[in-house]
Amino acid sequence: MQRPVHSSFKSVLAENEIVRVAGANHALGGLLAQEAGFQAVWSSSLEVSASRGLPDASLLSMTEYLQAAADLQKELTIPVVADCDTGYGGNLNAAHMVHEFEAAGITALCIEDKLFPKMNSFVGAGQALLDTSAFARKIQIAKEAQSSSDTYLIARTEALISGLEVDAALERCRAYADAGADAVLVHSKAKTHDQISAFLDGWDFRVPVVIVPTTYPDWNIEDIRKAGVSVVIYANHGLRATVRALRDTYQAILVDGDTTGLEHSIASVQDIFTLQKLDSWRKLDA
Amino acid sequence: MQRPVHSSFKSVLAENEIVRVAGANHALGGLLAQEAGFQAVWSSSLEVSASRGLPDASLLSMTEYLQAAADLQKELTIPVVADCDTGYGGNLNAAHMVHEFEAAGITALCIEDKLFPKMNSFVGAGQALLDTSAFARKIQIAKEAQSSSDTYLIARTEALISGLEVDAALERCRAYADAGADAVLVHSKAKTHDQISAFLDGWDFRVPVVIVPTTYPDWNIEDIRKAGVSVVIYANHGLRATVRALRDTYQAILVDGDTTGLEHSIASVQDIFTLQKLDSWRKLDA
Amino acid sequence: MQRPVHSSFKSVLAENEIVRVAGANHALGGLLAQEAGFQAVWSSSLEVSASRGLPDASLLSMTEYLQAAADLQKELTIPVVADCDTGYGGNLNAAHMVHEFEAAGITALCIEDKLFPKMNSFVGAGQALLDTSAFARKIQIAKEAQSSSDTYLIARTEALISGLEVDAALERCRAYADAGADAVLVHSKAKTHDQISAFLDGWDFRVPVVIVPTTYPDWNIEDIRKAGVSVVIYANHGLRATVRALRDTYQAILVDGDTTGLEHSIASVQDIFTLQKLDSWRKLDA
Amino acid sequence: MQRPVHSSFKSVLAENEIVRVAGANHALGGLLAQEAGFQAVWSSSLEVSASRGLPDASLLSMTEYLQAAADLQKELTIPVVADCDTGYGGNLNAAHMVHEFEAAGITALCIEDKLFPKMNSFVGAGQALLDTSAFARKIQIAKEAQSSSDTYLIARTEALISGLEVDAALERCRAYADAGADAVLVHSKAKTHDQISAFLDGWDFRVPVVIVPTTYPDWNIEDIRKAGVSVVIYANHGLRATVRALRDTYQAILVDGDTTGLEHSIASVQDIFTLQKLDSWRKLDA
Repeated sequence: MQRPVHSSFKSVLAENEIVRVAGANHALGGLLAQEAGFQAVWSSSLEVSASRGLPDASLLSMTEYLQAAADLQKELTIPVVADCDTGYGGNLNAAHMVHEFEAAGITALCIEDKLFPKMNSFVGAGQALLDTSAFARKIQIAKEAQSSSDTYLIARTEALISGLEVDAALERCRAYADAGADAVLVHSKAKTHDQISAFLDGWDFRVPVVIVPTTYPDWNIEDIRKAGVSVVIYANHGLRATVRALRDTYQAILVDGDTTGLEHSIASVQDIFTLQKLDSWRKLDA
Repeated sequence: MQRPVHSSFKSVLAENEIVRVAGANHALGGLLAQEAGFQAVWSSSLEVSASRGLPDASLLSMTEYLQAAADLQKELTIPVVADCDTGYGGNLNAAHMVHEFEAAGITALCIEDKLFPKMNSFVGAGQALLDTSAFARKIQIAKEAQSSSDTYLIARTEALISGLEVDAALERCRAYADAGADAVLVHSKAKTHDQISAFLDGWDFRVPVVIVPTTYPDWNIEDIRKAGVSVVIYANHGLRATVRALRDTYQAILVDGDTTGLEHSIASVQDIFTLQKLDSWRKLDA
Repeated sequence: MQRPVHSSFKSVLAENEIVRVAGANHALGGLLAQEAGFQAVWSSSLEVSASRGLPDASLLSMTEYLQAAADLQKELTIPVVADCDTGYGGNLNAAHMVHEFEAAGITALCIEDKLFPKMNSFVGAGQALLDTSAFARKIQIAKEAQSSSDTYLIARTEALISGLEVDAALERCRAYADAGADAVLVHSKAKTHDQISAFLDGWDFRVPVVIVPTTYPDWNIEDIRKAGVSVVIYANHGLRATVRALRDTYQAILVDGDTTGLEHSIASVQDIFTLQKLDSWRKLDA
Repeated sequence: MQRPVHSSFKSVLAENEIVRVAGANHALGGLLAQEAGFQAVWSSSLEVSASRGLPDASLLSMTEYLQAAADLQKELTIPVVADCDTGYGGNLNAAHMVHEFEAAGITALCIEDKLFPKMNSFVGAGQALLDTSAFARKIQIAKEAQSSSDTYLIARTEALISGLEVDAALERCRAYADAGADAVLVHSKAKTHDQISAFLDGWDFRVPVVIVPTTYPDWNIEDIRKAGVSVVIYANHGLRATVRALRDTYQAILVDGDTTGLEHSIASVQDIFTLQKLDSWRKLDA
């Protein structure tokens, strides 16, 4: 019985006009995203840090984020896109990151232009950014560190997050693309997609665009596609649904005093076995 | 800012007539179980293996189960009870297990009388058991390996799971208690609690009894308490609720094409921040 | 700056009449073996467990042995041969082992026909073996689990170690080769190479032979080559030299009260920097 | 069989006028340092990174350094002093570091006033330092993060390493002590101990002083003691001896073609077994 073989993110992108990516923090989540039809999984630093009960503030180490991404990728046929924060430090760290994620079979990495240690994008205002040229240099070093032509590097700008104008985001993304980034991710925490639309209006598409519509949830995939976006990351909905489900379930057990009422609203033990591929494993040794 | 300090399982048991324990596979789940009012968390081998997309069949190593238990315990004030399968091999492995789990601050361990490598209790029938005396010896060696008087060892019999009679379960549990086990867990996959009730009728309570009412969900906590049980483990409901929530959420995103409809049925990003204790961490460096 | 790319063990074997392999337990040891001219490195369970201060008795987990092998391989251009003990349990564990070691880029694995948990081959006498057919089945399942045609599986018989005759070792090795093993390792703790020579006299070379001349150190490589052996593992000399060097060094510091006398008998700090490839890393960010 | 129980570094310091500490990168090295009579072990970032074939430049993560320190401590009765570089990032990272190292039983931590990512002290000149007040704040936050009164924090100044004068080192160390550091480490790469002696002449001993005489190897322990130093770290001699021993051994095997000549100059397999405490482990299951 062989392990699932996964596609590279680059090949998935080549075969689809638009790629939808779901956030997950463990292989089971990744399997369910794959089952639903997502074409890739986002190993989200918010999800991974939250699952450990810690803020998304560069407290967990590259080792821990890599482990999470690798454990996700191992059981999937769709590729993992690793949320690599700032590249975990300076330029040498970014090169080492590429070495380590490649060794774990990860084919897409995303790094952002904030300073290490970072703070989550939805926290506070006016987070400081690395100089454009310094981040472009980091991208260049990361690209030079890759051994596989499959490795796909997404450069994420936090320009809009930090309060800069769309023009600043465009300027940064052009510099990042020219430094070798395979795509740019422009992040926004505006309540509408207007900022992103303005960005797309000004973008020459020298490389594809990635977005994360957490704060502008009503922008529909058809409109997103028409606007020219190539990749959409639904970054944290799985985690947020998990919190709601666990909260309700744990409370019900204590309030009800038994679990009869839960039995029909939660997956069965048999469902879990199926997701674990139990039958294939048992046949192996029959 | 100090990390949460956790109670020992022994102290929790001393202070409560009956202890309710919720299964979890990451610190966030543990935090939600704690928030709901559970008095301990079960680091379930089914949940941990399923979260990795693998069967509950001794494929993940002690290192991986220990990591899961340790990561859970670090952020909680309530104790973790570690589901340690067979003790991960023979008698030396059981001693090494105690050394390693103690070093990680885990105060309660549960080992079972199946053979290594084990298969999940709800799979198939007639799983083979270790001889009573051999498992009693394993318990004794594990107890002699502990350095802390806080360490609490639960001996779990799979006698009923493997098709033996209640008398056989009683005989085994008596031997395990006499070998030094601090409690016995009698597991059953019957559709009613009759087997467990028969066990309790025959038990002299030389040590407390632990149960896992997965297949007899309707046995209410009040009746369980009256029957003399000390610890009830709701082992996998959180995971099963998570699967249902993730499945629904991922499908909704793809079907709807946006996440507007989800926003009110899932936790908010701010909820996540609160669970991550973001404010305390930010104040630290204000 | 790219990471070293390593050859597969299979390709190294194809290009050399005889392959010499040195034991190591960390990347620095591997780098020094490579520098000396060894063609592969043995990630030895004796060395790895000893470096952790624990006996070679299946106490460390697959995760820990895999980590050691992976950390070795990452910095080398020559391949690592992983000493995988019994395959870490039963048949499912062996399949999982192949999945995990392949994911870490390891191209050669060695499993042995002892029972899990194992004890080091030089300890005691009469260690029990798995039945020939059961181990042949384990080999078959491990081979069916591989995804890469580069993966090379060495089947190691402990028949001579456990006190059986040469004929029994031959019979086992024939069965293992027929089950799909890419090579056989016949281990002996005799004081001379007579047992091994007798084995080689009876062997039809359906697959290559690997030896580990720890207890018969005087068998010279030229004679070994002429006898038809393809791979020689010098399994633990590096560790044993390390122990001697550390013991002498630590004692000298305490006895002398300073380190002047040591300066010319140990590597310089500059030597260490060179082994760390410091210049290449510094140039990266110049 | 219980695991060794280790002393806290604080208690060792209280019982000795001067404490000698040996660098090591694995438990076996730590055991040999302990056997020789050292009173503590330095989990050196130079040794740990070199053992992985990587420069000492914050490439390995806190997780990996912590693992190395924890694996060392587990098998020793003497305490480990963890070389924690800059505290692995900013102030929040320093707090998280204390939480994590405490959870692993480490009782002494050392952080330095360089910027993250750091470069080894013996590389180049004029490395930048954090402002005195910023590092004092980091120390204060780290001290406030500790849960155990046993935790001992050493503040290391790289003032002399970076080319500043002794007065600057003194000023920094006074500020660090006043911020809560339990001791100060003043590092120098001068060829003589004159810089350190000048520092000691100006120091009021409000907290103890730690030194690392790598570049001034001739300063004898008696003179060091008289000068008022409390802790001396022989940081990397074990590693450097290991490199020399491995280099010689690997070359000898290839040149000689057999290992007869080595047998009497390296430790025996039986020596290794003793260091692994094999007899105690075997008795456990007799």
